[in-house]
Amino acid sequence: MKAEIISIGDELLIGQVVNTNQAYIAEKLNGVGIVVDRMTTVGDDEPSILQTFESAVTTHDVVVVTGGLGPTHDDITRTAVCTFFKTDLILNEEALKNVREIFTRRNLPITKLNEEQALVPRGSTVMQNRFGTAPGHFFENEKKFFIVMPGVPAEMKGMMEGFVIPYFEKKPSGMFVRHRTLKTTGIAESHLAEQIGDVHLLFEPDSGTTLAFLPSPLGVRLRVTVRGKNLALVEETIRQVEMKLRSKAQKYIYAADDEDLEHVVGRLLAERKMTIAVAESCTGGLIADRITDVAGSSSYFERAMTAYSNESKIAELGIPVFFIEKFGAVSREVAEAMAFGVRKKSNTDIGLSTTGIAGPTGGSAEKPVGLVWIGYSDKNETIALRFNFLNDRRRVKERTAQAALEIVRRKLLKIV
Amino acid sequence: MKAEIISIGDELLIGQVVNTNQAYIAEKLNGVGIVVDRMTTVGDDEPSILQTFESAVTTHDVVVVTGGLGPTHDDITRTAVCTFFKTDLILNEEALKNVREIFTRRNLPITKLNEEQALVPRGSTVMQNRFGTAPGHFFENEKKFFIVMPGVPAEMKGMMEGFVIPYFEKKPSGMFVRHRTLKTTGIAESHLAEQIGDVHLLFEPDSGTTLAFLPSPLGVRLRVTVRGKNLALVEETIRQVEMKLRSKAQKYIYAADDEDLEHVVGRLLAERKMTIAVAESCTGGLIADRITDVAGSSSYFERAMTAYSNESKIAELGIPVFFIEKFGAVSREVAEAMAFGVRKKSNTDIGLSTTGIAGPTGGSAEKPVGLVWIGYSDKNETIALRFNFLNDRRRVKERTAQAALEIVRRKLLKIV
Repeated sequence: MKAEIISIGDELLIGQVVNTNQAYIAEKLNGVGIVVDRMTTVGDDEPSILQTFESAVTTHDVVVVTGGLGPTHDDITRTAVCTFFKTDLILNEEALKNVREIFTRRNLPITKLNEEQALVPRGSTVMQNRFGTAPGHFFENEKKFFIVMPGVPAEMKGMMEGFVIPYFEKKPSGMFVRHRTLKTTGIAESHLAEQIGDVHLLFEPDSGTTLAFLPSPLGVRLRVTVRGKNLALVEETIRQVEMKLRSKAQKYIYAADDEDLEHVVGRLLAERKMTIAVAESCTGGLIADRITDVAGSSSYFERAMTAYSNESKIAELGIPVFFIEKFGAVSREVAEAMAFGVRKKSNTDIGLSTTGIAGPTGGSAEKPVGLVWIGYSDKNETIALRFNFLNDRRRVKERTAQAALEIVRRKLLKIV
Repeated sequence: MKAEIISIGDELLIGQVVNTNQAYIAEKLNGVGIVVDRMTTVGDDEPSILQTFESAVTTHDVVVVTGGLGPTHDDITRTAVCTFFKTDLILNEEALKNVREIFTRRNLPITKLNEEQALVPRGSTVMQNRFGTAPGHFFENEKKFFIVMPGVPAEMKGMMEGFVIPYFEKKPSGMFVRHRTLKTTGIAESHLAEQIGDVHLLFEPDSGTTLAFLPSPLGVRLRVTVRGKNLALVEETIRQVEMKLRSKAQKYIYAADDEDLEHVVGRLLAERKMTIAVAESCTGGLIADRITDVAGSSSYFERAMTAYSNESKIAELGIPVFFIEKFGAVSREVAEAMAFGVRKKSNTDIGLSTTGIAGPTGGSAEKPVGLVWIGYSDKNETIALRFNFLNDRRRVKERTAQAALEIVRRKLLKIV
C-alpha cells in the first residue's frame, strides 16, 4: 500500500516549526509495510487543503493528515474534511467527556469552543485523544484509508500508537519493509562507492532491494532497504546484503542503525576493562561531551582536559615549553606529548588528544585553518595523525572529534 | 511571490531523517517577502520528481529544490532537472576547481565520480558550494525562479546565505516581513506569558503583527513577526514591540535572533578583559564545547577540566577527600570547591563548575536523577545553586550547561 502524509498549518509554512511529525509517521507506516511516497505541507486554507486531499486520495491507498484540529478560528481541517467527504459534524459523547475531564483536572473553566472539539465528522471512526482535547478521525472506504490527527506531536503519537499502527498490524498489507543502516567514517562517499563496486553484485535489480549512500559530517551511512511479501526472505536478504557490504567496507563500518561511535568505543573499552583520558585543544570539550553522553561512561572515562592556553598545556600536561616554541602548539610533537601526558597524569590505559586550527582566524600558509593533529597514546605506542578539514569552526570540531574516536575504535580492534 | 519547497530523498520518506531544510528555507524566503504556500517531499524517483516539478512551476513563482545532488547512483536530481528543462550537462571549471581543492586539502585521491560533480545543467547560473563538492543551480525565466541545492543542511545554507537571499533582497517584492526573536532562559512558558500579559497591549490585533512563544530545552523564545508594505513602518513596529517585551521580561532575555548564550557571555568577558575556567562533572565537557564554539574564545577561555572520577576532582581541583566523603560528589560543598579550585589553579577571574546526576542510573531518594549543583567563583564570592532537571541524560546536560552560562551572564551584568 502507498501512502501520502499531509501536514496542515501556517506555522510550518513560515518555518516557525520544524516538522517532525512526517518522519515519525513515515517510519511507523514503513514498519507495517506501508510505503510513503509523498509528503505535503499546506497552510490553513480550504481550497489548498481540498485540492491536496483530492490529489492524494486519487493516487494513494492511505492518506494521513495532521494539524488544524484545534479550537481556534485558524483551525479549519475538520470543516475541510466534512466538505471533502460531503458529510456533517455530530457530537461524540466520549470525546465530550474527555474534553470536560481535561478542563476539570486542570481546574480551568470550559468554554463553548472547547466543547465543540467533541464534534466529529459523521461516518468516521473516532480516535480518542489521550493527551489533548481534539479527537482524531479514521475513514475506511473501498480499501482506502483516510486518517486525520492533531498536529501536536504527543497527541498524534498517542493515536498512531494506540490506534493506527495496531489497526494495520492486524490487517497485514502483505508487504514487509525492513531497513538496515551501516555507518562508516573516514572515507569519502565516492571512494566508498568504488570500494563497494557494482551494487548489482550485491543484489538483483528490481528485487525490491535498494542501497542508499547518505553523507553527513560524521561520515557516510549505507542504508539497505528490502521490500517483499515473504518476511523470512526479506530478513534473509537484508542479512545477505549486509554481509556483502561488510566484506567490502568492513574497516570503515563502525556501527549500525541508531548506535553512535561513542557507544561503540565505550562498549569496547568496558569489555576490555580499559580506561581513557582526553586532552582537547581544538575540539574544546566536544570529545568529552560525546563520551559522557553514554550512560555508564564513568566506568571507563577518567577525565578530560580542555587545554586552550599554552600555559595550561605546559602546566597540566607536562608539554615541554621547548616543543611549543620549536614546533608550535599545532604540531605532531605537541599532539603526541598531550596524549602521552594526559594518559600518564590520569593513569589510564589510553590517552587521546587534539590540537588544530578551528578557525575562522589563526591560519597561515603553512598551517591553514582546518589543520588538525590527533594524538593517541597507550602503553605500546604514542602516535599522532594529521588531518585537513573544511574551514567551518563547528564542522572542524565535529569532524575532529569523530576522527579521534575512530582512531580509538581501530586501535582497540587492531584495524590497520 | 509564491513559493513551493521540494525536498528529494528516500531517507526523508522512510523517516530516517527529520527534514529541517524546509523550515529553514521557508523562514529565509519569508524574510525577503516570498510566501511559501506548499512544501513537498518525494523520493529519488524520476517520474515523481518530474511530476512534482511540473505542478510546482505551474502554480508558483519560485520553486526551491533540495537533495539528490551527490555523486552516487541514487542521486538523480540533476538528471531530472536536465530532463525537465530539456537541457544537458556541461563542465563548470570553477566547480571542478572546488572539487579538486577539497580532495587535495583532505589529501584524498580524486575519482571520476567526484569530478562529475562539476557538471552543471546548461542554462543555469552556478552557485558554488563552499562546504562540499556539489554545486547548486539557479534558473530564471519569465519572472519565474527555479533553484536547486544540495540536501546537506550546511551546504544548502551556504548557498541560501551566499546567493539566493542576497539575490532576492536586491529584487524587492513589495511586501516586507521582518522577524525578531528574543531568547529567554530560566523561566517557564506560562510564567513568561503571565509576565508579558495581554499581547494586545503590545500591538493592535490585525495589524500584521504576531507574537509566538517557542519553547525549547534551552529556554522559551519570543518571536515577533511584522508584515507590511512600508518597510520603515514594519521596522519601527518591530522595534516598539521589542521594547515593550524587554520592559516586561528584561532579566530573562539573554540574546536576540541567532546569538547564543555562549556568544553573549564571551562578549561580556572580552569587553571586561576577564577570563574563565570551567570544571565540569555532569556536563562532561559540554560547557567547554559551547564556549569554544565562539571564534576568538581563546582570549578569555583559559581551560576546562572534565573531572569525572572522584580521584580527578581530588587531584586536579584540590577538593578535600573529606568533602566528597561527607557531602557526596553531588553537593553544594563540592560544587563550590570545584569552582574555586579551577579558578585558583588556572589563575582566571571566574571559575564555573557543575556536578549532578545525569542518569539514567545513579539516583537515590535523597539525590534523584536530574539533581544538579552549579558552582560559581570570582574574587568576591564562591557560591553554588541547586537545580532539578528532567531525567533524560542529554537533556540534563544541556539544561545544566545553559543554566551555568546564564549564571555567568547575570553575574557579569549584576542582574539579581
